[in-house]
Amino acid sequence: MSADHALDPAIADSIARTIASPLGRAEFPHEPPYYAVIFCSQRTEETPGDGYGDTADRMVALAVGQPGYLGVESARGADGLGITVSYWRGLEDIRAWRAVTEHVAARDQGRRDWYRHYELRIAKVERHYGWERADGPADPAHPSATGA
Amino acid sequence: MSADHALDPAIADSIARTIASPLGRAEFPHEPPYYAVIFCSQRTEETPGDGYGDTADRMVALAVGQPGYLGVESARGADGLGITVSYWRGLEDIRAWRAVTEHVAARDQGRRDWYRHYELRIAKVERHYGWERADGPADPAHPSATGA
Repeated sequence: MSADHALDPAIADSIARTIASPLGRAEFPHEPPYYAVIFCSQRTEETPGDGYGDTADRMVALAVGQPGYLGVESARGADGLGITVSYWRGLEDIRAWRAVTEHVAARDQGRRDWYRHYELRIAKVERHYGWERADGPADPAHPSATGA
Repeated sequence: MSADHALDPAIADSIARTIASPLGRAEFPHEPPYYAVIFCSQRTEETPGDGYGDTADRMVALAVGQPGYLGVESARGADGLGITVSYWRGLEDIRAWRAVTEHVAARDQGRRDWYRHYELRIAKVERHYGWERADGPADPAHPSATGA
């Protein structure tokens, strides 16, 4: 938590990519291995002004500025079940993020007000690949599987 | 793909747990390490009768019967961005699941009809924990952090 994060080009790049990328999608140039924090939660009944949305946005903005942050993807269905996966360079970065005072307070409020239950997992990403419509119909995991 | 899956008590247990658990939530007694397949996708515009929902349900039913299947969690927001995380005992189980003919065909149709883009990651889960409202307000990752 040094004062010079704002000057770190990797962080500036993270912020630029997060702002530029479609909401909730985690695409970044870092190759495996790296780490995922998989957070699956069930909301309590949402009430306007319960502060959840603002805090969720604030946590993403805070995470983006953390050392080792790579990206985040997030989805929540109409049934209130949501999954957020954040990606990090290493375990020590996740530990530091979990210790950020404002993040600890948000988690406390989550248990008090916002969640019925959650599951949290920490996992080491060993492989990743992506596909875009513009890439054509072939399976990126099996590039030779089709003649396309 | 042996014919005796139906007799495997672990698979019967998987099916029972999946049916019993709230939709989209992955809670199971298997301890780490195990594997996660993190699939984040953006739907094309949904049209009634495009077959996506039925195929997605069918894929979950198929996965549940596969050796090494542990659980699945899934959420899709109104913006069409969805995350599905399936959990598996080992890499060889994921490989076998990805080779199931009906699953290969569904992935092909996904690239042809249903997705604008996706990212897929394979990750080894090293730690997990859960929290329920009935557990009280303490942080399960730091059980001694509060006096509660």
